[in-house]
Amino acid sequence: MGIDEIILLEHGSGGKASQRLLEEVFWPHFREVPMLDAAMLTLSRERLAFTTDSFVVDPIFFPGGDIGSLAVHGTVNDLAMVGARPLYLSAAFILEEGLPLADLKQVVASMARAALKAGVKIICGDTKVVPRGKGDKIFINTSGLGLIPEGIKLLPENISPGDRILVSGPIADHGLTILASRENLGLEGLESDSQALNHVVFELLSQFPAEIKALRDPTRGGLASVLHEFCEAAQVGIFLEEEAIPIRPQVKAGSEILGLDPLYLACEGRFVLACEPGAAEEIKAFLQGFPETRETAVIGEVLSEPKGLYLKTIYGGTRPVPPLSGEPLPRIC
Amino acid sequence: MGIDEIILLEHGSGGKASQRLLEEVFWPHFREVPMLDAAMLTLSRERLAFTTDSFVVDPIFFPGGDIGSLAVHGTVNDLAMVGARPLYLSAAFILEEGLPLADLKQVVASMARAALKAGVKIICGDTKVVPRGKGDKIFINTSGLGLIPEGIKLLPENISPGDRILVSGPIADHGLTILASRENLGLEGLESDSQALNHVVFELLSQFPAEIKALRDPTRGGLASVLHEFCEAAQVGIFLEEEAIPIRPQVKAGSEILGLDPLYLACEGRFVLACEPGAAEEIKAFLQGFPETRETAVIGEVLSEPKGLYLKTIYGGTRPVPPLSGEPLPRIC
Repeated sequence: MGIDEIILLEHGSGGKASQRLLEEVFWPHFREVPMLDAAMLTLSRERLAFTTDSFVVDPIFFPGGDIGSLAVHGTVNDLAMVGARPLYLSAAFILEEGLPLADLKQVVASMARAALKAGVKIICGDTKVVPRGKGDKIFINTSGLGLIPEGIKLLPENISPGDRILVSGPIADHGLTILASRENLGLEGLESDSQALNHVVFELLSQFPAEIKALRDPTRGGLASVLHEFCEAAQVGIFLEEEAIPIRPQVKAGSEILGLDPLYLACEGRFVLACEPGAAEEIKAFLQGFPETRETAVIGEVLSEPKGLYLKTIYGGTRPVPPLSGEPLPRIC
Repeated sequence: MGIDEIILLEHGSGGKASQRLLEEVFWPHFREVPMLDAAMLTLSRERLAFTTDSFVVDPIFFPGGDIGSLAVHGTVNDLAMVGARPLYLSAAFILEEGLPLADLKQVVASMARAALKAGVKIICGDTKVVPRGKGDKIFINTSGLGLIPEGIKLLPENISPGDRILVSGPIADHGLTILASRENLGLEGLESDSQALNHVVFELLSQFPAEIKALRDPTRGGLASVLHEFCEAAQVGIFLEEEAIPIRPQVKAGSEILGLDPLYLACEGRFVLACEPGAAEEIKAFLQGFPETRETAVIGEVLSEPKGLYLKTIYGGTRPVPPLSGEPLPRIC
């Protein structure tokens, strides 16, 4: 392969090869990236949201997405979860020497498509290269800026007994897909749920500004970890109905084969919300009208006692769902 | 070593161990890091600057600093170079499994000190852990937000024939220090120049709002690479006086021993500026009044022809200084 077919240390030098990389790989997609060290923007007198996330998913390409689209969706969704309208992203790459340039181009193109679809602009970037064996193909950091409209106040602390818990679609798709794909497990029909949720969240919060107490995306640590945070923040108990939790048959089967509990497996295109009891069905119906959240379900209820997370199983029993301990699935995002 | 003495995959899980890491390592220093996915801030109706940089320096501790202070200085300086007052930073870590926790604590404490000194707040963060051999100890991404005061307009395109070129202190300290430190070269008296430049740049731009055409920090690729960017942007020639360029004797000697040209070696606490000819001496004297820029020197002049970068050597000849090609020093930032 020629000099520009694979990533060399030289591509991170700040010299000619770096310039070529910018011109050939990044600028065709990220037209907003300026020559200056920082991007400038004028915003009106509103609250801003600012977030950061590094993505080290392995493998970098998987059914339903890749590290590039995931890096956009992850940060866009983090902004959406605090009620912000995502506007601008940064993109910083740590590349391993020897990475095929074609892989990088594919990832960058995927980021650009994801950003366009989510309605955000990637306005600053950075690239570093590390020697073979000191990184792993591609790591991406995306930081994001968004505007929070007046009146938005989403806080898990606001959750109170009686509130309902909804999830916007089937759980665990992303986590199980990554694992199966990394380990070549031969499980069929799996696909990541990675997608941007900002458009639907914007509509949701416009329609139900007062009824929604808290929003969160169940990424690392899955549904159980988000609900534990809710319980902790509001000092309440949450009771889930196992049969109400949407989960695809192939995900359920795959989790059982591997001995993994889908309650702890990551989603990358779902959100969990807590809302006032009277609004739950209306919110569910509203969300089911959007393709991203067609399979929204009411999955549980908030109680004052006992505190903590519990699952009413399909067999009629109730079991506590403990906080996640250990790392069942490294590098899923 | 016990479970929390070294970084385990578990620390990146989003579960209990991640929580412990937050509580024990990050929150004591970064009190602004919220529990929510994104940080919210209210800013007035001004221009914002937003920048990102990943740091992969090897070794992570070196004379004059470490990867933590460097990650703060680098992003703070990137904001200062566009005339912005740095306000907020994000900090995202990619940690290698097996990293001693003590090293991480030291780096985080160093970041916190650097941020305090620079007057910026680290308001959001992220931590990922990759398996042994898939990363290298610590990588840090810092993204930054700053406000650009009214009337600031720094653009290399504004440089015109007659303008003078100044550098704010001795060059090449950082690059040579990192190399010597990584390779155990036994060169003495070397120390990185890594420091935040925002306070002095703010004073500088307040005092000389119209006279300064362009500012840039000569990091990767060194002084020569920044000046090539100036030449390219303004379509001019820049002539440097070799004897005017400040360089410490030990840096000069070390570069000669290693066959490296200090014009291409990184600084992390210097800036280069282009200004109107009549203001050069006054700006030099002004900068020499600050500890960070005590050794500021006028090092060259802008001409209309020939275009490109040239060095008048101490022997009286003139040689072209070509753009950087290849990677003399990987992982210096």
